[in-house]
Amino acid sequence: MEKFELHILGCGSALPTTRHFPSSQVVNVRDKLFMIDCGEGAQLQFRKSRLKFSRLNHIFISHLHGDHCFGLLGLISTLNLLGRTASLHIYSPCGLEEQMRPLIEYFNRQMTYPVLFHEFETGQPSLIYEDRSLTVTTIPLRHRMPTCGFLFAEKPRPNHIIREMIDFYRIPISELNRIKNGEDYVTPEGEIVPNNRLTRPSDPPRSYAYCSDTLPLASVVEQVRGVNLLFHEATFAEEEAPRAKETFHTTASEAATIAREAGVGQLLIGHFSARYEDETPLLEQARAVFPHTLLAKETLCVPI
Amino acid sequence: MEKFELHILGCGSALPTTRHFPSSQVVNVRDKLFMIDCGEGAQLQFRKSRLKFSRLNHIFISHLHGDHCFGLLGLISTLNLLGRTASLHIYSPCGLEEQMRPLIEYFNRQMTYPVLFHEFETGQPSLIYEDRSLTVTTIPLRHRMPTCGFLFAEKPRPNHIIREMIDFYRIPISELNRIKNGEDYVTPEGEIVPNNRLTRPSDPPRSYAYCSDTLPLASVVEQVRGVNLLFHEATFAEEEAPRAKETFHTTASEAATIAREAGVGQLLIGHFSARYEDETPLLEQARAVFPHTLLAKETLCVPI
Repeated sequence: MEKFELHILGCGSALPTTRHFPSSQVVNVRDKLFMIDCGEGAQLQFRKSRLKFSRLNHIFISHLHGDHCFGLLGLISTLNLLGRTASLHIYSPCGLEEQMRPLIEYFNRQMTYPVLFHEFETGQPSLIYEDRSLTVTTIPLRHRMPTCGFLFAEKPRPNHIIREMIDFYRIPISELNRIKNGEDYVTPEGEIVPNNRLTRPSDPPRSYAYCSDTLPLASVVEQVRGVNLLFHEATFAEEEAPRAKETFHTTASEAATIAREAGVGQLLIGHFSARYEDETPLLEQARAVFPHTLLAKETLCVPI
Repeated sequence: MEKFELHILGCGSALPTTRHFPSSQVVNVRDKLFMIDCGEGAQLQFRKSRLKFSRLNHIFISHLHGDHCFGLLGLISTLNLLGRTASLHIYSPCGLEEQMRPLIEYFNRQMTYPVLFHEFETGQPSLIYEDRSLTVTTIPLRHRMPTCGFLFAEKPRPNHIIREMIDFYRIPISELNRIKNGEDYVTPEGEIVPNNRLTRPSDPPRSYAYCSDTLPLASVVEQVRGVNLLFHEATFAEEEAPRAKETFHTTASEAATIAREAGVGQLLIGHFSARYEDETPLLEQARAVFPHTLLAKETLCVPI
C-alpha cells in the first residue's frame, strides 16, 4: 500500500499548556505533505517529526483563530531562509491573506518563492485541491466564525493487470488501458475474456476527515460516512457539555457518536482543553460510544 | 538576597531545530518578570518554565527579525483569553507597533487589556525602563537592522540598620532614614557616632546584560563592564568566523573575549546556529578565552 498517514504536530486548544502545542497536523500522501492548520510552533514540531520542508507545498487552514494559524509567519519565513523556490499554497476561509501579506513582506525583505493564498467560502462543501491521486474537499463546520474541516480522499485507482494472463492471451499493449479501466477483452477469434480474469482490483481508496473546531453536526456524519480515519475535536469531557455548547465545541462522547453514526474505521480525538492534565477520561467517554478511538498526541503518527 | 535570575526560554537562531526554540528569555527581579525577545513558542516555554503570566508586564524586543518577535501575537492573544486587565508594555526598535497592531486587533476582537508599545532609537544607550529597584538601558548593537541589547541593573540599596546599635544609642526613628543613606549620628551630647558602627552595607547591586544579535563590539565591552552575568550571542564556532562576520554575528571565542575584557562575572552564550547538533565545541572555544562560561539551554535558570 502506498503511504497515507497522519502526523499530529499539535493537539491542544487555544491556551498553551506544558503538554500540548496548538492545532497542526500533516497528512503524508505518497510523500507529498499536506499541512492542516498551523498553530504556533508548527514548524518546530514539523522538524521534530522528521518531516521534510521540501515535500510541503499545501497548507489548509480551518478558520482564522490564532491557535490555528499563528505558526504560518514563522514557517513561511523559515522556508524563505532555506531558499525555497517552489510556490507554497495556502487554502483558508476569506480574510487570511489581507492579514498575513503585509507581515510576510515586512519580515521577509526578499522572498525566494511565491506564497499563494486560495480563499474559500465555508457555507457548503467545495473541492479545493485535486491532483492525480487525491482530492481535498471542505467540510462545513459550525464554530464562532466561518470554519471548515477537510476531507482527504484518494482517488480510485485502475485495476492491476495480471501480466501472465496478458501474455497468455497475447493481448496487444494498445488494449491495456481499456482493460485497466475495467473492460473485457475480445480476442481476434471473437472470444470474450471477462475483465476479472485479466486484472485484480487495486486497493480500495482511503480517506481521512479533519473536523475542528465545531459543534457536533449531523451534516458532518453524512459527509464523513465511511472514512478510514476521522479526526474530530473533543475539547471537553461530558461534564463540561454546557461549556462545550456555549463555546461551539464538542465533547468526547459527542465526537464518538458522530464516528459511530458515520461508520468510520477509526476515530482520533484532539483539541483538548487546557484544563485536562490527563485526557484518559475523554478517551474512556469516547470509547464507551465508539471503541475504535485513539487520543491524539504530539508527534503521534497514524497510518490510514 | 532578593531574587534576580534568568530563565532561558529559547536559545536557537532563526532556523528551527529539534533542540532549540528561537530567542526568548525572562529576567525575574523580585518576582517581577521581564521578557527579552519573544520568538515563536515563547509562551509555551514560559509555561514550561512554570512562570506566571500575571507577573509579566514588560517585554523588550532587541530587533525586528522574526525569530525574536514572532511569539508576541500568540502570547498577547493568550493573555487576552485569560482575561488580563493590566497593561502590557512592549519596548522595541521603531516599526513593531505598525506591524503588530492590525493583527492584535483582528485576532482579538475584544481586548481585555491595553498593549502599549514604547519604541526607541537604537543609536545610543537610553534608559527605557525604571522602577524603585531596577533600571533597563539599551545597549546599541550592530546587526543587519537596528538592534539593541539590554542592561538590567539593580539600583544601589540603602545600608542595613544594625538594630542593637540604634537601641544602644537610643536614636530616634526620625533619624533612621538619614543613617540608612550613610550619614553619621550626632548624640544630644555632641558625640559623633560614625555610620559604619550603625549600619552594615547592603548587598551590592547586581546587573545582567543581554547582547543578541550583533557583531562583536568594543562599545559593548565598555557598557557591560563588570556585570554579574553577560548573555552574548555566539551563533558560530571559530571555524565559521567569515560567515559570522558576513551575517553580522559573533563567534564563541569573540563573545568570550568581550566577557574577559569587560571583566564580567559569568558569560552565558546562546543563539546557536542550526548547524550545531552539539554546542560543546563552542563552549570549549569560549572557555579557552574566558573560563566562567556556560552554554544556554532551554528552561535553564541562572541565578544572577
